[in-house]
Amino acid sequence: VTDGAPSAVERRVADLAAAVPRVDAGAASAAQVRSDGLLKPPGSLGAVEVLGARLAAVACAVPPPVPAAPAVVVAAADHGVHAQGVTPWPQSVTASMVGAFLAGTASVNAVAAAVGARVVVLDVGCAGEVPDHPRLRRARVRRGTADLSAGPAMTREEAAGAVLAGAGLAEELVAAGVDLLVLGDMGIANTTAAACLLAACTGRPAADVTGPGAGADAAMLAHKTALVTAALDRHRLDPADPLGVLAAVGGLEHAALVGVALSGAADGVPVVLDGVNTVAAALVARAFAPDVVGALVAGHRSPEPGASVGLGALGLDPVLDLGLRLGEGTGGLLAVPVLAAAARVLTDVGAIADLAGGA
Amino acid sequence: VTDGAPSAVERRVADLAAAVPRVDAGAASAAQVRSDGLLKPPGSLGAVEVLGARLAAVACAVPPPVPAAPAVVVAAADHGVHAQGVTPWPQSVTASMVGAFLAGTASVNAVAAAVGARVVVLDVGCAGEVPDHPRLRRARVRRGTADLSAGPAMTREEAAGAVLAGAGLAEELVAAGVDLLVLGDMGIANTTAAACLLAACTGRPAADVTGPGAGADAAMLAHKTALVTAALDRHRLDPADPLGVLAAVGGLEHAALVGVALSGAADGVPVVLDGVNTVAAALVARAFAPDVVGALVAGHRSPEPGASVGLGALGLDPVLDLGLRLGEGTGGLLAVPVLAAAARVLTDVGAIADLAGGA
Repeated sequence: VTDGAPSAVERRVADLAAAVPRVDAGAASAAQVRSDGLLKPPGSLGAVEVLGARLAAVACAVPPPVPAAPAVVVAAADHGVHAQGVTPWPQSVTASMVGAFLAGTASVNAVAAAVGARVVVLDVGCAGEVPDHPRLRRARVRRGTADLSAGPAMTREEAAGAVLAGAGLAEELVAAGVDLLVLGDMGIANTTAAACLLAACTGRPAADVTGPGAGADAAMLAHKTALVTAALDRHRLDPADPLGVLAAVGGLEHAALVGVALSGAADGVPVVLDGVNTVAAALVARAFAPDVVGALVAGHRSPEPGASVGLGALGLDPVLDLGLRLGEGTGGLLAVPVLAAAARVLTDVGAIADLAGGA
Repeated sequence: VTDGAPSAVERRVADLAAAVPRVDAGAASAAQVRSDGLLKPPGSLGAVEVLGARLAAVACAVPPPVPAAPAVVVAAADHGVHAQGVTPWPQSVTASMVGAFLAGTASVNAVAAAVGARVVVLDVGCAGEVPDHPRLRRARVRRGTADLSAGPAMTREEAAGAVLAGAGLAEELVAAGVDLLVLGDMGIANTTAAACLLAACTGRPAADVTGPGAGADAAMLAHKTALVTAALDRHRLDPADPLGVLAAVGGLEHAALVGVALSGAADGVPVVLDGVNTVAAALVARAFAPDVVGALVAGHRSPEPGASVGLGALGLDPVLDLGLRLGEGTGGLLAVPVLAAAARVLTDVGAIADLAGGA
């Protein structure tokens, strides 16, 4: 698929993918056995018990650790396809919103504060300037992608560099004590790239995975869908070559989130998905390393059609279904307390065998 | 409806109901206007925006206060109808579970810890002994109800006393700084009483509102449903006389939760519902004071059929749908961080008019 031997950067991505461990099915079933013996009717905590078993599998521990230091990584980048009129928002909004994330005035900051999570922003390819801030990591691979409707969005080297930027940040955060990662995204026009990634990874037509994003009207959505169809025809994407898919039609933030997911999974940390952009990144991550899915939790169901298609392909049931379609990691963050509760139940609740006066 | 003039206790319940204020529709619409002007596409936070408007209406304030000191009130009591074989669990489990709530080894304790909520247990009518504990409030009206299938579950005076016990506890908690109340219940056999309350308040047949509760099998469920049908025939309940309904077929914990809901609403504090028992209490509370519904939030959708019937009658969409059917307040607690996020968004997020480089 590549021209010649893989580069050093590509080999590092392959090493990252190879570090993702097998899902610990033994821990998951041991967690379910433990759950069934707790002081409650078996199964009466529903999906919370299923999530507890998932956390046990990710951590290879029963009970799993209670997430105490969650962080949302908001990967931000711009998109050359913006020039094709696929969104009503100007491209400059990407950098402006990064400024808001740093100033603490965006929705992700409010939701993160509500659930006790840290916000970290990764500029992996904004076109505009963003100010220095302790919450910002600068890792620009390029100032936005090229127009995917006219040619490749970026080179394989650039895509690999963005994957490694995300992985490096995740590794740094986990080393600093972060024990749960939420994926967030910011990038005006990025739902167009996400639709291409979703179509490439699932084989579904553009119409099934293209949605209005942050406010396309019916005419703009029709144009966007036609553009995605044409891009899929042009690029002839091979789902077995995820780096090639990212380079052809992806965003730098999608690539970075692939890296966050792979690194989190490799480190045994749960990775919570947000909306359609993070679901697209998860599908690409799965193409690199199928076992990454064992570390993923679907935080919520976005009304973007591609989100449900992608979650279905990943086999993930979302924790929440609240009609959120903002991105930034907001919906993923809202699932964090449910995960904390799932781990706490397995940790704190007594055994039903100890029930005084039991049947 | 009553025999003669209402008693002093009944008059106090009527005063409590009269203290529930009108829903502040102005604050709700002002909150939605504010939400539409925040730094995000209008509506992109979906149900979180709707919840923010609801919190604004309850508090009569835009932005509404961010819930910082939530508490779950777990009202516990026993049921004479237990003798009719409507549950596989022995009656002694009620007091045993109260012991677990006090020891901190139950699911409600784990979930409350995960979301930063306080647990308060109200013994309003357990049959067995429970130990002293700072988390326990003793307000036994009687040691469990009488068998609703053979006669009234309790007197009107007793029902009113239980309502006032719940209201008094809510008032005490709010005076101590609690700013959000979650309703929780414990009472072996209480889903039978809840089904009677749901049927009385909605006019639906027993089969629509009777479920397996904490583990009835098909034969037991059929018996339970027939018993509810017979009880409805026997008692000829008048939904316009909620105290009479409670006295005939309710539980002491249902009555207490009616009091918590009415008192919370009167104090401008949001009241979060859990499963079918709390939904039944909410319907009774609405019969006392229709405006109480403005202060209610449906925390989750229990799979018990009566829960969805009741939420539909109340016009409430649940925040979560995770298949929880435990009670204790567990599902209501899981919605608390979503409410905190809804209030925080209205409080912390900047204005879209300030967006640098905007359209």
